[in-house]
Amino acid sequence: MKLKIGFLLALALCLGGARPARAADPLPAWNDGPSKRAILDFVARTTTRGSPGYVPPAERIATFDQDGTLWVEHPLYVQAVFALDRLKALAPEHPEWKSDPVFQAVLTDDREAIGRFTKDDWRRILIATHSGMSTDAFHEIVAQWLATARDSRFGKPYTDLVYQPMLELMRTLRSRGFKTYIVTGGWQEFVRVYAERVYGVPPEQVVGSSVATRYEMRDDKPVLMREPEIFFVDDRAGKAVGINLFIGRRPSAAFGNSDGDREMLEWTGAGDGARLMMLVLHDDADREYAYGPADGLPDTQVGTFSPSLMDEARKRGWVAISMKRDWRRVFPATPRAPERSR
Amino acid sequence: MKLKIGFLLALALCLGGARPARAADPLPAWNDGPSKRAILDFVARTTTRGSPGYVPPAERIATFDQDGTLWVEHPLYVQAVFALDRLKALAPEHPEWKSDPVFQAVLTDDREAIGRFTKDDWRRILIATHSGMSTDAFHEIVAQWLATARDSRFGKPYTDLVYQPMLELMRTLRSRGFKTYIVTGGWQEFVRVYAERVYGVPPEQVVGSSVATRYEMRDDKPVLMREPEIFFVDDRAGKAVGINLFIGRRPSAAFGNSDGDREMLEWTGAGDGARLMMLVLHDDADREYAYGPADGLPDTQVGTFSPSLMDEARKRGWVAISMKRDWRRVFPATPRAPERSR
Repeated sequence: MKLKIGFLLALALCLGGARPARAADPLPAWNDGPSKRAILDFVARTTTRGSPGYVPPAERIATFDQDGTLWVEHPLYVQAVFALDRLKALAPEHPEWKSDPVFQAVLTDDREAIGRFTKDDWRRILIATHSGMSTDAFHEIVAQWLATARDSRFGKPYTDLVYQPMLELMRTLRSRGFKTYIVTGGWQEFVRVYAERVYGVPPEQVVGSSVATRYEMRDDKPVLMREPEIFFVDDRAGKAVGINLFIGRRPSAAFGNSDGDREMLEWTGAGDGARLMMLVLHDDADREYAYGPADGLPDTQVGTFSPSLMDEARKRGWVAISMKRDWRRVFPATPRAPERSR
Repeated sequence: MKLKIGFLLALALCLGGARPARAADPLPAWNDGPSKRAILDFVARTTTRGSPGYVPPAERIATFDQDGTLWVEHPLYVQAVFALDRLKALAPEHPEWKSDPVFQAVLTDDREAIGRFTKDDWRRILIATHSGMSTDAFHEIVAQWLATARDSRFGKPYTDLVYQPMLELMRTLRSRGFKTYIVTGGWQEFVRVYAERVYGVPPEQVVGSSVATRYEMRDDKPVLMREPEIFFVDDRAGKAVGINLFIGRRPSAAFGNSDGDREMLEWTGAGDGARLMMLVLHDDADREYAYGPADGLPDTQVGTFSPSLMDEARKRGWVAISMKRDWRRVFPATPRAPERSR
């Protein structure tokens, strides 16, 4: 009898180790409401054996946009801030930039001119700041910038301005066997520098835009040089293309916040079985920002959310997440411990 | 005391479940010798806690070329056979192909002419047979072809002509926490159709060449259409580029068999810590084929292995696998059961 009790005790400990106890609320930063219910319902349906929506573990894929979905994107995408800072740092080596009105606007902090930049202006800035070095050197540059740069409103490192409810959502999905991918219009090699530490997402699960790279032998050691040429734009239709290219499976769940995520949600929703598509609405000017459909403001160039996206969300049953109503807390309370990923 | 014994017994059972007992030889299709020793030594060094070569589980990546490394590539790459068959199947819809000498050579089985095809001839054949349909339709076409096509020498489905020793190697690595990737010059969407069933490699771990795809709405349902345009060539330097693009981590081990794998092995070998780079030599005309450096034959267009690759292998300590000496068995004895992947 004692033997049996000991056996059962140890067995319980082992099983407890394999699958954590579920007494605690896995989503404490979410208020009770339709968004939280939709998440918990989706998780139960896809991971309960015998449920009609059951998805085998190997096929559990969830994709997340980054800017505005996992972290703050206003007043300017973090990577755009990086590009502007980097341009200034490089300016002494490039006296010719002084005669370039676009670059000159950056160097003189002419915010009005920057606000009017066209896509091509941004492309030129990205190329000038994101290419011409090896992949290793680029990682180092990004890591150093992230360590020192601070958001002007919150005074914190950008990697602290991630949304606590979304971290909990990712963690919950992973604890139930989902692979969580970031599918970002931002640059893959930029996000990979911190995605594992900040989101628990390993480099191989970060899909994003990229420049071409060229293989070279230098002192008998291979390097990949970042070329001044855009290779892939992982935005809008590119997100569906990128999901197929990099993952090769249709996700069961997808999370976004802007027009750039529309095709990712369409592509995800077109599969069979249980599906979850959600859009974060920025409607909380006090704790974060209010823009897009939340306040009837005109379209912003950063995180554009067109009325037609809201129409489509309603038509297709995508769930809107109200930052104001659904999130008990927006940012993490304490520095987060690094987390192992799946 | 009894309680303690019961506890330890159950604990042992649990741990046994988490990590299978290692009594049996994990590589029974390998003869004892330097290749097998190199593999077992690498696995022990990278996965034994406290070993100087220890690699944390999340960073355990191994990459495998496919053609000639995991399955037979002679007399012609399987995917080239597929392309020729497919061209014939499509010919009735394309009367204009009769006036095209390249296509006409295929339609009349002119082997001599086919043997002289240039890269551009093959590119045209690939485009004609691999594009113009949705990704779903392409998967269906490949699956149907694989189900019926037979290799002319062995009379078996191509997916039976995989190398048993390499299956054991992949399985051994996975059982020790490695993620096994296929990094192929062949076409990603082709290999993804069967990689999970045949190799235990899920779609998201297949990196290969690809055509561009275009996102379209058809009857309110999104499709990805395969375009007549090559997007990425995952061969030679492209393999190092592809590994960085799709995986974003440097592998600890890489396995190939031809010039196309050189940069993958260089890139893998340039990392710190324990490394394993291996090249399969086709030196077994009785059980498979003999070509390349094994028999001093002139370079073949299929699986080219230049003398300079052998020189580099010696210089960098890459291990040559002799099919004849190192492999007790070449092909699986019985139909393999589908295997879950990591």
